[in-house]
Amino acid sequence: MKGIAGGRGAGYPALMPRYALKIEYDGGPFAGWQRQADQPSVQGAVEAALAKLEADMPSIAAAGRTDAGVHAFGQVAHCDMAKDWDPFRLMEAVNYHLKPAPVAVVACAAVDEEFHARFSAVERRYLFRLVSRRAPLVHDRGRAWRVGHPLDADAMQAGAERLVGRHDFTTFRSVQCQADSPVKTLDELRVEELPYPGGVEFRFHVRARSFLHNQVRSFVGTLERVGAGAWNPDDVTAALAARDRAACGPVCPPEGLYLAGVGYPEDPFGDIGP
Amino acid sequence: MKGIAGGRGAGYPALMPRYALKIEYDGGPFAGWQRQADQPSVQGAVEAALAKLEADMPSIAAAGRTDAGVHAFGQVAHCDMAKDWDPFRLMEAVNYHLKPAPVAVVACAAVDEEFHARFSAVERRYLFRLVSRRAPLVHDRGRAWRVGHPLDADAMQAGAERLVGRHDFTTFRSVQCQADSPVKTLDELRVEELPYPGGVEFRFHVRARSFLHNQVRSFVGTLERVGAGAWNPDDVTAALAARDRAACGPVCPPEGLYLAGVGYPEDPFGDIGP
Repeated sequence: MKGIAGGRGAGYPALMPRYALKIEYDGGPFAGWQRQADQPSVQGAVEAALAKLEADMPSIAAAGRTDAGVHAFGQVAHCDMAKDWDPFRLMEAVNYHLKPAPVAVVACAAVDEEFHARFSAVERRYLFRLVSRRAPLVHDRGRAWRVGHPLDADAMQAGAERLVGRHDFTTFRSVQCQADSPVKTLDELRVEELPYPGGVEFRFHVRARSFLHNQVRSFVGTLERVGAGAWNPDDVTAALAARDRAACGPVCPPEGLYLAGVGYPEDPFGDIGP
Repeated sequence: MKGIAGGRGAGYPALMPRYALKIEYDGGPFAGWQRQADQPSVQGAVEAALAKLEADMPSIAAAGRTDAGVHAFGQVAHCDMAKDWDPFRLMEAVNYHLKPAPVAVVACAAVDEEFHARFSAVERRYLFRLVSRRAPLVHDRGRAWRVGHPLDADAMQAGAERLVGRHDFTTFRSVQCQADSPVKTLDELRVEELPYPGGVEFRFHVRARSFLHNQVRSFVGTLERVGAGAWNPDDVTAALAARDRAACGPVCPPEGLYLAGVGYPEDPFGDIGP
């Protein structure tokens, strides 16, 4: 692993050293990423671990504020530390204090103070895992959404293609969504079909600069209806065109959703992490 | 799903109808497959579910008696029922009664009474998942063995090839092994390298007609030493030639091991399961 603690750009005022953290978590036991006064949150867990290292830690910012039950293997956050840390030692120390929470820092890099995990991000990637089989899930319990009926991958892919591009996604955002505009550009919505013991797994690969609240779960819940034959791809086009939340299919549960990665103009982790 | 409850061969006496069950389980909470008086076992969980369906259930037999903590997604067992069950309904009923145990029947087929899950098996396939990364595991906690140092896949593959074929595997069996002979034919021991967030995953694919006790974990524990550079492939050859349990590398923990599948002269599940 490349130690780039000393790689801070010249010409910036000597503020607190800033570090980018790539974070993996099981969303099951958390009320979501965002810190809350009375419920466990991933942000709260990471901040509590950082607070064991330095007093008066400022709060941390993340690229995606995932909902309750949503997982991540590629969340990115940044933190400002009082002293210069070797990034590898910082990762190890945070992971030590995170135990036994199902949260881990899988990569850490020193970044310039102009880097902001949320505002510098130019792409978010999500994965949704949907398993079709009769038997309850065992190894993937809480890690994928199971349905007991067959699904048609080609139909789901055909429906997905109706959503790619720049659209008013009012139909596919929750009423609590705080984004200024419902217009977003969806760069990818691809359905991958994989063998699964006793059934079939469908992986939805979703990519955009940014997302509306509940957008991925609204997409997957709608496309599942297409896969089941209850909707056809034209119904997806009509739902999109309606620009009406009531036209959306059922929003699917969170347990199959993973924040898979975040893109920046320059990858802060360089060659130190996948 | 093909209902083959009526597909029993003609010419056999009308004994109890026999069913083959393909079973998935998380080995973590169990003392192993085999029923024990005072500890939870996978066999005990399945038998308890079957006992909810019919009184006086005979005990069931499985292809592989996995150890404590070892998982499966392709275990095969057979059971004898008093009445004729539609295989799909039997699977559904057993799964209903298995809840909330992390055990599920993923396929079920009616078989002739000459079929025996253990004695008819001609091949067992195991998967071992080994992850090399610094951060603790999150999504795969209890589902893979993690080491914190780098491993060389080519070296592990070179070591693995010294073990393939017909050999006296005394070095690689536990002292508790009850097999009559330590001579076995190892048909495959292949190391697959995959990207993993913050590290690398190595999957060991292992295949033989039958295995000695702790053989796969003895192989993987030894090959991990090769991957770490502490051993070289010639050391593996020497360990095998020693025919001495003391020459084995450290036996690795069970949490990365999965019984992946069982082969029969004719697949009882035909086209109903992968």
